[in-house]
Amino acid sequence: MTRSGISLNGITYRRPEQPVVVVCVDGGDPAYFLHGVETGILPHVTRFMAHGFAAIADGAMPSFTCPNNMSIVTGSPPSVHGISGNFHLDAKTREAVCMTVPELLRSGTILAEFSRAAANVVAITAKDKLRRQLSKGMDLSSGSVCFSSEQADRCTVAENGIEGVLDLAGMPVPHIYSPELSLFVLAAGIRLLEIVRPELMYLSLSDWIQHKYAPGEPEATAFYQALDTFFGRFDALGAVVALTADHGMNDKCGPDGSPNVVWLQDILDVRLGRGRTRVICPITDHYIAHHGSLGGFARVWCFDGTDPAGVMRIARELPGIERVLDRNTAVREFDLPSDREGDVIVLGDRSTCMGAAEADHDLSGLEGRRLRTHGAVSESKVPFVLNRKLTEEYAVRAATRGIKNCEIFDYAVNGTVSSR
Amino acid sequence: MTRSGISLNGITYRRPEQPVVVVCVDGGDPAYFLHGVETGILPHVTRFMAHGFAAIADGAMPSFTCPNNMSIVTGSPPSVHGISGNFHLDAKTREAVCMTVPELLRSGTILAEFSRAAANVVAITAKDKLRRQLSKGMDLSSGSVCFSSEQADRCTVAENGIEGVLDLAGMPVPHIYSPELSLFVLAAGIRLLEIVRPELMYLSLSDWIQHKYAPGEPEATAFYQALDTFFGRFDALGAVVALTADHGMNDKCGPDGSPNVVWLQDILDVRLGRGRTRVICPITDHYIAHHGSLGGFARVWCFDGTDPAGVMRIARELPGIERVLDRNTAVREFDLPSDREGDVIVLGDRSTCMGAAEADHDLSGLEGRRLRTHGAVSESKVPFVLNRKLTEEYAVRAATRGIKNCEIFDYAVNGTVSSR
Repeated sequence: MTRSGISLNGITYRRPEQPVVVVCVDGGDPAYFLHGVETGILPHVTRFMAHGFAAIADGAMPSFTCPNNMSIVTGSPPSVHGISGNFHLDAKTREAVCMTVPELLRSGTILAEFSRAAANVVAITAKDKLRRQLSKGMDLSSGSVCFSSEQADRCTVAENGIEGVLDLAGMPVPHIYSPELSLFVLAAGIRLLEIVRPELMYLSLSDWIQHKYAPGEPEATAFYQALDTFFGRFDALGAVVALTADHGMNDKCGPDGSPNVVWLQDILDVRLGRGRTRVICPITDHYIAHHGSLGGFARVWCFDGTDPAGVMRIARELPGIERVLDRNTAVREFDLPSDREGDVIVLGDRSTCMGAAEADHDLSGLEGRRLRTHGAVSESKVPFVLNRKLTEEYAVRAATRGIKNCEIFDYAVNGTVSSR
Repeated sequence: MTRSGISLNGITYRRPEQPVVVVCVDGGDPAYFLHGVETGILPHVTRFMAHGFAAIADGAMPSFTCPNNMSIVTGSPPSVHGISGNFHLDAKTREAVCMTVPELLRSGTILAEFSRAAANVVAITAKDKLRRQLSKGMDLSSGSVCFSSEQADRCTVAENGIEGVLDLAGMPVPHIYSPELSLFVLAAGIRLLEIVRPELMYLSLSDWIQHKYAPGEPEATAFYQALDTFFGRFDALGAVVALTADHGMNDKCGPDGSPNVVWLQDILDVRLGRGRTRVICPITDHYIAHHGSLGGFARVWCFDGTDPAGVMRIARELPGIERVLDRNTAVREFDLPSDREGDVIVLGDRSTCMGAAEADHDLSGLEGRRLRTHGAVSESKVPFVLNRKLTEEYAVRAATRGIKNCEIFDYAVNGTVSSR
């Protein structure tokens, strides 16, 4: 990079004149901003919408955290960066392969490119799992930093480019299942903006609140009010503030509060025999209290000559299924990496989620609350909010091409006018 | 209406201070504006996008002309206004019922309400079929007018509120299959804006060009350049100019140029027996040269105990089918009138269209050109362009709720700021 910027995946990002702060509100379904704006609890977000630029954008499919975070920091679809979920299956070994590791990320990142060009970059995540993948390629030896609130007490200059993060945020290490896990990210971000005034910041939150609480529930309202206060402070500090989400969130329960789950592995085992197929729920990770590894998107791999068309026939008959796709169609339509795609892709509808075998899902973490989760097309719409107006070029582009969440760095860095 | 406005379907429309001109560019897929903006042939549209407001909006489903025109002039979904295609089937008589008649429209219109409150309203359509439905309830005795370019030579004061329309437009009656059918609408509109300065204008074009020519083909380019010139003149005359479309348009052919058609009636007749089902292609009308009555959306009615689930199973197996829905799901998801809905709804994918029985479709009108048509979800995205900026309230609303084409009168009348 020269002073004029960096290039990645066909896009040139100019070097920002003011700090650019991109926030990914994990699980930030447009319904939360809608409720907050209509009830008047989000004065700063409302002001950005009225005087800057805002729209509802398309996220990447599947509507999960890692594919969308990687799309945002690479400015590219999953077919380019390679991350299409938390797990895929190695068809040869029949082992589930974790995709949230840096090694499987196939693209450089905007964060890494800027950091290696000696720009100060700050990347903070809620969960450390995401931090490890997000920091790939970042030069943390010359002022840039990358850490998670989950492991804020373990930061080292060698690993994170910074230490003493608890003092910085003025908060203890937050619990993994708490709103503070996200608020820590923003509190530390504010302090770093004040102290080091980085050129680029990426702040990626946790969707624990959104999994647990619908728009309007007191806990969601308090969380969004806290977010809005932070967004206002970033704005007051002169930053370009850009807000988006990785995915939305929907209630997946029936009227009685019990979750609408299609236990796809159980069904396929009964219909085709055990061991003929393997269902992967790519939302699966070690933090299951949110959702019990149930999402709106499942992949099926077929073994020993099992015909994918037969699996598709079975899946299409099930209630609550919105679409069933073969690999090629899914890869083409959702711009996915074909070598990590299943033979059959099953998408739940707005109120139904996909499970594998019922015995393998632990729903105790729901603690009797309604299941809210994501992964399907109905959770792929996300907010896209800037506290600055667009340039004419970007206004025309948004109007003719539509907007994706993975364009937020491009819009924030290249597409906003300096004066408000 | 008082001087303060009218109310319809839950929305209050204030009385415009400047003339408001809403144009429905029939078949105006966002790809045409995209191509035109990128090649620099649309200076006025580009200026509106850069300095007014523009986005890509959702149209009503099915993505056909009449449902969307009726949604635009009523500000409501098909479940409210009742028009969900050109034809539905009366399950009792097994007769196809034409839905493009005024009698089946279940809502008042913005045009009628304003005209009856003594506002000057001008509504001009390309085809007379649409004019007849669109003029329902309009008071054409006190200055408001409604006519079609198709029958511009037959206007009477009693029927249309105006005569001598050919002189007005300075053009002869255009051919039903010509770009002039649309340009006549705009030419007459310009003259009426100059002469009578109506408070509200609705100008609805024909999609003959878009059915025939892809973005970038010389005929499409010439047509869009002509549109842009008219749009610039409306703007120069001080009108609020609001542009949208009823539906988009996609190529539905294979690499060799032959259309990708699912002949659904033929398939169902073979599989279930003749007379067990009836397939209705709701795009069917008397003007078939555009598309041979092939669209992306078909309805199936089942007779004599034929199980819709069996029809769904068959349809889902067919190549090129994106989704198959039962009546209740389609009604709920697309906000359709249930009493005019089929038992099974079949949606083609981006490059496939639906036919009934091959023998009943006349494709000779295609004259060897590639089939381009609409009706499915992939043609439900449309432009939404205003030559004025939005008020803060409407900017926030667009950012939190998204935008539908049926909101264009509301945005144009209530949501724009007076000064540019």
